[in-house]
Amino acid sequence: MVDENKPIMIPCPAFDWSFFVHNMRNSIGVASVSLDSALKATPELREKHLQLAHAAVKNAVADLESFNEISRPLEMTPRKEDLSALARDVACGHPVASGSVPMGTDLAGGLVVGLDAKLMRQALTAVLDNCLEALAEAGASSAISVATSRDPAGRAVLSVSMTGRSASDDRFGGLGAPFFTRKANKRGLGLAWTQRIVQAHGGTVEFRTPAEGGFAVVMSLPLENAGKQGAA
Amino acid sequence: MVDENKPIMIPCPAFDWSFFVHNMRNSIGVASVSLDSALKATPELREKHLQLAHAAVKNAVADLESFNEISRPLEMTPRKEDLSALARDVACGHPVASGSVPMGTDLAGGLVVGLDAKLMRQALTAVLDNCLEALAEAGASSAISVATSRDPAGRAVLSVSMTGRSASDDRFGGLGAPFFTRKANKRGLGLAWTQRIVQAHGGTVEFRTPAEGGFAVVMSLPLENAGKQGAA
Repeated sequence: MVDENKPIMIPCPAFDWSFFVHNMRNSIGVASVSLDSALKATPELREKHLQLAHAAVKNAVADLESFNEISRPLEMTPRKEDLSALARDVACGHPVASGSVPMGTDLAGGLVVGLDAKLMRQALTAVLDNCLEALAEAGASSAISVATSRDPAGRAVLSVSMTGRSASDDRFGGLGAPFFTRKANKRGLGLAWTQRIVQAHGGTVEFRTPAEGGFAVVMSLPLENAGKQGAA
Repeated sequence: MVDENKPIMIPCPAFDWSFFVHNMRNSIGVASVSLDSALKATPELREKHLQLAHAAVKNAVADLESFNEISRPLEMTPRKEDLSALARDVACGHPVASGSVPMGTDLAGGLVVGLDAKLMRQALTAVLDNCLEALAEAGASSAISVATSRDPAGRAVLSVSMTGRSASDDRFGGLGAPFFTRKANKRGLGLAWTQRIVQAHGGTVEFRTPAEGGFAVVMSLPLENAGKQGAA
């Protein structure tokens, strides 16, 4: 499966674009209303409406460019990599590791995955960024864990879990969809990129919100040597 | 597979969104530049720039709403239908049937497909609309054919072919991608809807541009009774 050093292009998967439409409707809607007002306003009042329209258009441009980034084909160069080594490296170097909440790792050996290390580091970093933001917001987590394992289906699993933080389904309903965010100053693209990257590797991402609180992001990836061992 | 009368929701498939981005960049770009100009212009000249920005924003809104239409989950109510009867009905009722170019039909019997007739009529109508537009543009076709058959893989095939019209690969490169069009006054959504609808039915659409000229749109759909006959 892995042809070393050869970049491949992965088309955009099916995504839920409703949050993108929602954002763009807001931005373009504000621009439209402001322009209507500007056209009707006295010359002295036009400036204010123009400034509003200008800001709204700038927002629309930014969202459109983010949409283009995440929807266009993704170039990746997969090589055989040790998933646990990559996970350790990213987790230990991330700001969340030096925060007030303890971070533990539970890493399995021999998980060789055909992956683009640069992209997969981005995917994991985005998840850890979300942990950091969740901590900054609620600060109630008791522990963060980064773990790798081999699942019964013979796939490599990389998971990040946070305990001690309650989460409602509503709050996490759109997680992973591009432009879904509950934070006013965020575009909601971090976990969408995680999805995009993991899917490009033939993997899946699952967001779990256990009843006892906390949340987990579970990424499953095909093992490079799974076929040789008789897995499907 | 088919539960009569029960609507099902089909999420948006993976699409090439690059033509959408291209359109939106144009519209929002014009709006942005016009607004910049308006802000810098003398009060007397502002009106002109505002009108330009207004038209551009209107365009962006229209494209965004089209994007929302085509990207959101599709509701369909599949029932057992005779594909050939539907094809005959749509083809004979379409303006292209009463045009100057002869239209022939070659319809197989016994092709029972689980489909939403309203949607499938739209899918076929969009293809025939394209034939009509191609004729209006070039007028060089010698014949149009609407055919149904059962392919070797045990799927129902519905195809529309036009002969006698030369076509370059470049011209048809983006066919079926939303917002791809060569016509200034079109949004490029007809064949994208055909794709969306056929894919929602578990089918595929292929655009063929034979070397000898002309083009064909070939839709393959799973047969309702294929499983019982041992097909995959």
